[in-house]
Amino acid sequence: MTIILGDNQYGKAETHVVRITKSGADGKTHDIKDLTVSIALVGDFAASHLSGDNSNIVPTDTQKNTVFAFARQPDVGEIEDFGLRLARHFVGEFASVHRARVSIQEHPWSRITVDGKPHPHTFVRAGSEKRLAMVTCTDDGTWVVSGITDLVILKSTGSEFTGYPKDRFTTLEETRDRVLATSLDARWRHASVQADWAQSFAETHRLLLETFALKHSLAIQQSLYAMGEAVLKAQPEVAEIRISMPNKHHFAVDLSPFGLTNENEVFYAADRPYGLIEGTVTRDDAPEAGFAW
Amino acid sequence: MTIILGDNQYGKAETHVVRITKSGADGKTHDIKDLTVSIALVGDFAASHLSGDNSNIVPTDTQKNTVFAFARQPDVGEIEDFGLRLARHFVGEFASVHRARVSIQEHPWSRITVDGKPHPHTFVRAGSEKRLAMVTCTDDGTWVVSGITDLVILKSTGSEFTGYPKDRFTTLEETRDRVLATSLDARWRHASVQADWAQSFAETHRLLLETFALKHSLAIQQSLYAMGEAVLKAQPEVAEIRISMPNKHHFAVDLSPFGLTNENEVFYAADRPYGLIEGTVTRDDAPEAGFAW
Amino acid sequence: MTIILGDNQYGKAETHVVRITKSGADGKTHDIKDLTVSIALVGDFAASHLSGDNSNIVPTDTQKNTVFAFARQPDVGEIEDFGLRLARHFVGEFASVHRARVSIQEHPWSRITVDGKPHPHTFVRAGSEKRLAMVTCTDDGTWVVSGITDLVILKSTGSEFTGYPKDRFTTLEETRDRVLATSLDARWRHASVQADWAQSFAETHRLLLETFALKHSLAIQQSLYAMGEAVLKAQPEVAEIRISMPNKHHFAVDLSPFGLTNENEVFYAADRPYGLIEGTVTRDDAPEAGFAW
Amino acid sequence: MTIILGDNQYGKAETHVVRITKSGADGKTHDIKDLTVSIALVGDFAASHLSGDNSNIVPTDTQKNTVFAFARQPDVGEIEDFGLRLARHFVGEFASVHRARVSIQEHPWSRITVDGKPHPHTFVRAGSEKRLAMVTCTDDGTWVVSGITDLVILKSTGSEFTGYPKDRFTTLEETRDRVLATSLDARWRHASVQADWAQSFAETHRLLLETFALKHSLAIQQSLYAMGEAVLKAQPEVAEIRISMPNKHHFAVDLSPFGLTNENEVFYAADRPYGLIEGTVTRDDAPEAGFAW
Repeated sequence: MTIILGDNQYGKAETHVVRITKSGADGKTHDIKDLTVSIALVGDFAASHLSGDNSNIVPTDTQKNTVFAFARQPDVGEIEDFGLRLARHFVGEFASVHRARVSIQEHPWSRITVDGKPHPHTFVRAGSEKRLAMVTCTDDGTWVVSGITDLVILKSTGSEFTGYPKDRFTTLEETRDRVLATSLDARWRHASVQADWAQSFAETHRLLLETFALKHSLAIQQSLYAMGEAVLKAQPEVAEIRISMPNKHHFAVDLSPFGLTNENEVFYAADRPYGLIEGTVTRDDAPEAGFAW
Repeated sequence: MTIILGDNQYGKAETHVVRITKSGADGKTHDIKDLTVSIALVGDFAASHLSGDNSNIVPTDTQKNTVFAFARQPDVGEIEDFGLRLARHFVGEFASVHRARVSIQEHPWSRITVDGKPHPHTFVRAGSEKRLAMVTCTDDGTWVVSGITDLVILKSTGSEFTGYPKDRFTTLEETRDRVLATSLDARWRHASVQADWAQSFAETHRLLLETFALKHSLAIQQSLYAMGEAVLKAQPEVAEIRISMPNKHHFAVDLSPFGLTNENEVFYAADRPYGLIEGTVTRDDAPEAGFAW
Repeated sequence: MTIILGDNQYGKAETHVVRITKSGADGKTHDIKDLTVSIALVGDFAASHLSGDNSNIVPTDTQKNTVFAFARQPDVGEIEDFGLRLARHFVGEFASVHRARVSIQEHPWSRITVDGKPHPHTFVRAGSEKRLAMVTCTDDGTWVVSGITDLVILKSTGSEFTGYPKDRFTTLEETRDRVLATSLDARWRHASVQADWAQSFAETHRLLLETFALKHSLAIQQSLYAMGEAVLKAQPEVAEIRISMPNKHHFAVDLSPFGLTNENEVFYAADRPYGLIEGTVTRDDAPEAGFAW
Repeated sequence: MTIILGDNQYGKAETHVVRITKSGADGKTHDIKDLTVSIALVGDFAASHLSGDNSNIVPTDTQKNTVFAFARQPDVGEIEDFGLRLARHFVGEFASVHRARVSIQEHPWSRITVDGKPHPHTFVRAGSEKRLAMVTCTDDGTWVVSGITDLVILKSTGSEFTGYPKDRFTTLEETRDRVLATSLDARWRHASVQADWAQSFAETHRLLLETFALKHSLAIQQSLYAMGEAVLKAQPEVAEIRISMPNKHHFAVDLSPFGLTNENEVFYAADRPYGLIEGTVTRDDAPEAGFAW
């Protein structure tokens, strides 16, 4: 029996960079990109583990500097583009780095309106949701995953839950009408590394919300699958989508002790525990996922 | 020397209630109110402290039930109205309760758009900011404070910081151009307990954002005062406004080691420490604050 | 009617400083102090608010530097001492600063044990609780408040809740035996600015825990008062203690649907809502609180 | 091209159950187990996704009930045992469930000391760290992973970082002496499903801390490997250990502007970004991991 080093990786996590781009007359119109960037490298790092020899270890501080320097480029572009440039840099620049993954969260801002017009350099945080990109590069391949997280959605009817098995621990009553609420996390793998990222994201975002609204739900699983299917049907460049939907329970409060009815009007919004429904929708001919995830 | 009981209060905190109101043909159009309600009571509670005699202690569980039962009323209304009804209930119903404070956070939702039209019963969380109301009732008076919190705003220019004193611990350099970002918390006391709460909130919200955008800032204190002043000028019913503005530092990254300039284009967004600027703007003839705060 | 500036303050919040002190042969024995320091200044700051004139505004960056520089002194001492030195510095150094408050959280570490002996320079975080000090200085006075927060405690019996008023919204059943759990926050004001802070803290900490354990509880209010009374009785230098005890509800699960009894053996630990019990215990001859709080 | 359902699972997450066990004369001595239990099931769930047919969907509410009912058993035992019983239940009871994973966090409590003796029924939260177990069962196999998370440790010397590659983005200076601090997350896979879990955990915990303290560190990777190696060497039943060590940066503050030296005495403890070092240590003859992770 020999003790050996198994899988390992390292990198700088959560570098929070904000890029202001100036355009228009005198550079008076500003745009903002607000990104949290995490990097993970895989490569020839055994010597560092076994003997503390760091000759292959690109410092995480250097990785952070690289993020800032790359953000200085004239056009950061969509986060998928920015991730591609960064991931390719680490694999291309350092022979010891065999795989680089760059994960980016983008925090949304919108312009403040003044006198009915968008202000050129003042912004308000636009929501709790974050757009995501995860780019992985090796010498042999590149993979792009896009996503959205912390997108909180709720439908106040159009959701049922019946027909489930009952055992000796079952007390839940079947329902033909309930609130369905979740904090959506969806991540989709692209079949190629070239796409109109902004357009693809907007369309996926729209399809997820619309399908959640329109699909009459007999199970969260059914909503989840329908949402994924809608994205794959409309977007041939998406090979696979992984969706996580925590069931943010809204329990109708029993008001009968107070002589009141409650026809799904007053709910207690619980924190924990919560159901957690996770699923993947893909194509039978999707390309291999490789190191995408 | 005698040991005595001083100020004390108790109540149920953070009851999370969601109210769905149904209207239109067949009740198919839904509206949502998503509230976190905290209650604190002051009164004749000495016996409970001194001997465990609970004959004056309205259980916090009952308070929670009361919130749910009151939410069943046909029209919850604005959170200031809901708070007034609840606070008056506790003072009116229980002789031992001398003062009741009801603090409410409202979580914003907007309708999901499907085919360009707002969907009747599907919603998306509209932002991280929360609208606030704090209502305090005694046998002799009632006070209403409205507010907003977690409103994250940023201006990418139009902010300076110069002319401050330097001592032996000063290393900061003066700047004629910086990013100014904050997570705004503002709370304003009304001169009366009757107002068009929705309209007053919308107007205050608008004035805070617009003034933040338009006021050229020589100090965060100056922005803060201008924001408060704008609200008081436009809204005679607001007696006082208290504003807290953490300085969410955005430091321009020194890119010179990489041969790059950085004219306020690439920033590191820091978490801690942060400046914290707090101030009150009021009127010289404002009514006494009493138990408002 | 004139719009005027009311109360205001500013400062640097949450400077996280770690001080390593080296002693013994060759400085090989290390001690650690891990502090988060927040500063708030009150003074002649009107010009900054009204016209952006910062000639009286000590930058928060300078305040941060001052914390680091003062931490370099040979003996940081107890957090009350460190707070006193910092607060006096700001009031003494700057004529425009009339009042300075320094609030400090100390994060606990203990030594890692190796072969049964404490290691000279390796530490493990010792708990979630934080020791607190809040020092306030003016030209005329100085006040010291010590405290503890996030101290999570639980007794699995020895707690009742009965005899409370019932109204139409009451559904809670009386109980002669329940779990009592809280996350204790206690802050005590000292009658003077000189004390053996370490000894005073240790004794207060001990008395709070012991009294929580030993006092049979008919109400959380009764436990709270008994805990405060125990501290005041034993420690003449403590003028007043303010205690906050959220009721971290542990509900006995109804296992009867599964044919099981549950005599306070299986509990569901709820997150929200929670009761919140707050009270002050003081002396009838306590000196005025002044600007202590 | 056909759209298909890929990997999917669901379950109840974060059921927070507290179990009080009573022993001794009159059941006056209590013990506490404080667990957060998450369940994820894999099986024949396609019909629910495709058509909303829930005949195979054991409700997450039932799963929660099952956790509470199982907690009522006379001896909950170590969390690995509790996880084994729960995981086997779901696979054994429901033909449609092919795989069950039970993940448990245990929150540590210790007894409050009164008059130098441990109190029989009063407890204080013992730290921020959590003990972990993750048990996975299928019809064909069972896997047990144990772990620890949020274990915050720091050594104030005995750590270097030198010899790394420099490129055009490198500004970091080499150091022969730095603070090394992390929030340790370690998870180890057992070769079998029978062990003295309590003893194995205590020994692993001890070895991780001792090795962190004693190993002179030329790289975090080297510390990580040494810690894993120590566990594997001493514990033949551990097949593999996965360790995650965020580098909680402590930067020595430059005090030279204030005329002060700083020989690793005053540090700024940063929040973000942070290095993240992750690695696996295993054996060349370790059994296959199967569905353990």
